[in-house]
Amino acid sequence: MFEAKLGSASTLKRIVDAIKDLVTDAPFDCSETAMCLQAMDSSHVALVSLKMDVAMFESYRCDRTINLGLSLAGMARALKCANNEDTCLIRYEENDDSVLFLFEDTKRDKSQEVVVKMMDIDSEHLGIPEQDYSAVVCMPAAEFQKTCRDLAMFSDSLMITVTKAGIVFTGKGDTGSSTVTYAPSKSADEEQQAVSVDVKEPVTVNFSIKYMNHFTKATGLSDRVRLSLCNSVPVVVEYGLSENGHLRFYLAPKIDDEDADMK
Amino acid sequence: MFEAKLGSASTLKRIVDAIKDLVTDAPFDCSETAMCLQAMDSSHVALVSLKMDVAMFESYRCDRTINLGLSLAGMARALKCANNEDTCLIRYEENDDSVLFLFEDTKRDKSQEVVVKMMDIDSEHLGIPEQDYSAVVCMPAAEFQKTCRDLAMFSDSLMITVTKAGIVFTGKGDTGSSTVTYAPSKSADEEQQAVSVDVKEPVTVNFSIKYMNHFTKATGLSDRVRLSLCNSVPVVVEYGLSENGHLRFYLAPKIDDEDADMK
Amino acid sequence: MFEAKLGSASTLKRIVDAIKDLVTDAPFDCSETAMCLQAMDSSHVALVSLKMDVAMFESYRCDRTINLGLSLAGMARALKCANNEDTCLIRYEENDDSVLFLFEDTKRDKSQEVVVKMMDIDSEHLGIPEQDYSAVVCMPAAEFQKTCRDLAMFSDSLMITVTKAGIVFTGKGDTGSSTVTYAPSKSADEEQQAVSVDVKEPVTVNFSIKYMNHFTKATGLSDRVRLSLCNSVPVVVEYGLSENGHLRFYLAPKIDDEDADMK
Repeated sequence: MFEAKLGSASTLKRIVDAIKDLVTDAPFDCSETAMCLQAMDSSHVALVSLKMDVAMFESYRCDRTINLGLSLAGMARALKCANNEDTCLIRYEENDDSVLFLFEDTKRDKSQEVVVKMMDIDSEHLGIPEQDYSAVVCMPAAEFQKTCRDLAMFSDSLMITVTKAGIVFTGKGDTGSSTVTYAPSKSADEEQQAVSVDVKEPVTVNFSIKYMNHFTKATGLSDRVRLSLCNSVPVVVEYGLSENGHLRFYLAPKIDDEDADMK
Repeated sequence: MFEAKLGSASTLKRIVDAIKDLVTDAPFDCSETAMCLQAMDSSHVALVSLKMDVAMFESYRCDRTINLGLSLAGMARALKCANNEDTCLIRYEENDDSVLFLFEDTKRDKSQEVVVKMMDIDSEHLGIPEQDYSAVVCMPAAEFQKTCRDLAMFSDSLMITVTKAGIVFTGKGDTGSSTVTYAPSKSADEEQQAVSVDVKEPVTVNFSIKYMNHFTKATGLSDRVRLSLCNSVPVVVEYGLSENGHLRFYLAPKIDDEDADMK
Repeated sequence: MFEAKLGSASTLKRIVDAIKDLVTDAPFDCSETAMCLQAMDSSHVALVSLKMDVAMFESYRCDRTINLGLSLAGMARALKCANNEDTCLIRYEENDDSVLFLFEDTKRDKSQEVVVKMMDIDSEHLGIPEQDYSAVVCMPAAEFQKTCRDLAMFSDSLMITVTKAGIVFTGKGDTGSSTVTYAPSKSADEEQQAVSVDVKEPVTVNFSIKYMNHFTKATGLSDRVRLSLCNSVPVVVEYGLSENGHLRFYLAPKIDDEDADMK
C-alpha cells in the first residue's frame, strides 16, 4: 500500500500544471524516502525530473517501492477539483488499477474523492551524469519567465551568456532583436529579488525558446529559479520545492548554423 | 400601460444572463401582483420559472394583465448597457410593438434608453403539479456550482443521493470518476455556508450534468440554492430573489441503462 | 543623432497600443520641438495625429529634423518588453537602418535593449485646415468609450447631436435601438466626471461606430476626451497627453441615405 498526504493540494496542482503540456504520461516512482518522477517530453528533447521528499508530506507510508503510471491530464483533472487549502491524500492499494485522490475541506464537512485509472508506462530510468557547471545563476523566477516570453517575440532561439559581469539573454530575429542584461546584485539588495552569478568560466549557449517557455510554467512553484550552465552541455533549470524537493528541467543546447556562427 | 421600476438594473441583468442560453424567446406575464416568466428550454427538457413580486420594484403599474414577448438576447443587449447601480424602468404602452428600458445614473445627469422590439411568442402555460418532495437540500450556491463543474470533467450524468447522512454527488466516466460528499452542517456553522438536509426518505436520482451547469449560471443571484428531490420526479433547483420572488429550474431525471443499474 | 528619454515607458506603450490596429506603418517626424506622427488609417477614412512635445521627455536631443519610419507592430513588440515603470530611451544614429529602444529598471540592475528595423514609408503631410467648430464637448473618456461600445450592439452608425441641453448619442438597428443622453454638468460636480458642452450652433452628425471604437482604445491615456463637431465636417476626438501633447483622431461624417433622412 502507498498512502501519502499533503497539507495543501496546491503544490501538487502547480507541479502537474507545470509539466502536463510537456509530458503526457508519467511514471511516479514511490519509495520509502521520496516520490519521484523522471520523464522525457514527447519529442525527446527535454527531460523533467521531480523529487518530492517525505518531508513535504504530512503523512507518508510506502510498504514497498512502487511505480504508479498516471496520465498527467487525468491528474490535472483530479487536482482541478481541489481547492488550494484542501488537504490531498494519494492512495494506492496493492493490485488496484487506479489511484485515489481524496481532498478534504477541513473548514466544512466536505470531501471529494477522485479515482484516476492507472496506465502502463515504460519507465526508462535515464542516468543523469554528475556535471560540474561553468556557471550557476540564481534569479527571480518571474524575471526569467518574463525574459523568455519577451524574447520569444523576436526569435526561436534564446542565447544565454554568463560572465562575471552578469547574465545576458539575447533573441535575434529578422525584423528586430532584443537583449536583456542583468548585472549581479549588490549584497544590499532584497534577497528574493537578487540576481547572483557564480562563474568558473564564461558560458555562451543557445537554446530553443519554446522549451524554456514550457519550463517557466513552473514559476508559481518558487520565487527563485536556478540555471546551471556549461558550454555544449544541457542546461538545468531548477525550481526548489521549499527545501524538500525540486522540479528540474534539462535541455540540450541548440546546434544550428546560426549558433555555430556565434561561437 | 405597464411600467415597473427596479432600484438597480443588476438583478434583472443577472436573471437574463442566467437563462438566455437556455431559453431564446420569453413571454413575460405581467399582472397586478407580479412579473412572471415560464418557458421550456429549446429542446423541451428543462423548464424555467421566474417570479418577481411587486415588492421587488420601486414602483409598479400594470393596468391590465399583459404578455410581453421578448427575445432574451435583445434584453441581454439592453441590460448590458446598464451600469449595476443604474435604476431600470421597463415601460410598455398599449399597442406599441416594442418595450422601452430606461436606465438612469442618478449620480450624474445621464440616462440611456433602449428600445427592444417585441415578438409573437406562443405562451403555453404549463401547470406545474404540486409535489411532496422526499428530500430538500439547502447549500451554498457556489458550492453546488463548483461541484457540477467538477463532475462534468468526468461524466455527462450527475447522480445525486440524499440520506440523513448528507448529500453525495457522483460522476463516473471511463478514465476516472469523482464523488463529492457534504455532511449536514452543525448548528454552529455560519449560516450562509451551511448545508442543511431535510429527508423524508432517501433519494437517488440521475440528471444531465449539462443542464445543471446551465442552471448554475444563476449563482450570482443568491448565496444559497435549494434542491427539492424525489425519485423519478423532476428536481427543482431554486434561487431566491431576496424573499420577493424566485428563479426555479425543473429538470426530469435521466432514464438510461446506467441509471437503471444503480437503482 | 536623435535621442529622447521618457521617464516611464507606459505613455508610449499606450499610444502605440491605441493606434496600432488603425495604422500599420508610421512615419515619426522628429524635430527640435516635438516628436510627431500623422498617418491615415489603411482604408484612408480616419487620420491619426500625435504630438509629443519636448516637455514630455526627460532628455531630448535632435540634431536635425528627421523622419523615422517604423512598423507599429514592431514598436508594440518592443514596448511590450518594458515594465510600466521602466525608463524608455529612443535612439537613432545617423545612417542606421534601425531604431534602438532601451528600457531600464532603475530598481534593479536590469536593462533591455530592443532593436527595431526601420521602413521606407511615404509620409504625405496632410495639411489639416483650421476649423471653427460649432460644438465642443468635454467628457470622461471612459463614458465616451462605454457609450460607443454599447451603441455598437445596435448599429453601425453613431449619431451625435449636441445642443445647449446636452449631448445625445443614438444607435438605431433593426431589432432595437439605444439613445444615451448627457446633460451638461452643474459646476458643483467633480471636475473629472463633468460633462461640459460649448455650443455655438446645434450639430447633428453621423459617424461609423467602428472607427469610434478604434479611437477609444486611447482611453487609458487621459481621463478626459474632447469632441469637436461641426455639421458635414470631420469630428476631432482628442486625448490630451498631460498638457504637453495630444493624440487626435479625425473622422469624416458618414453620408448615407439614413443620414440624409435625419437631416
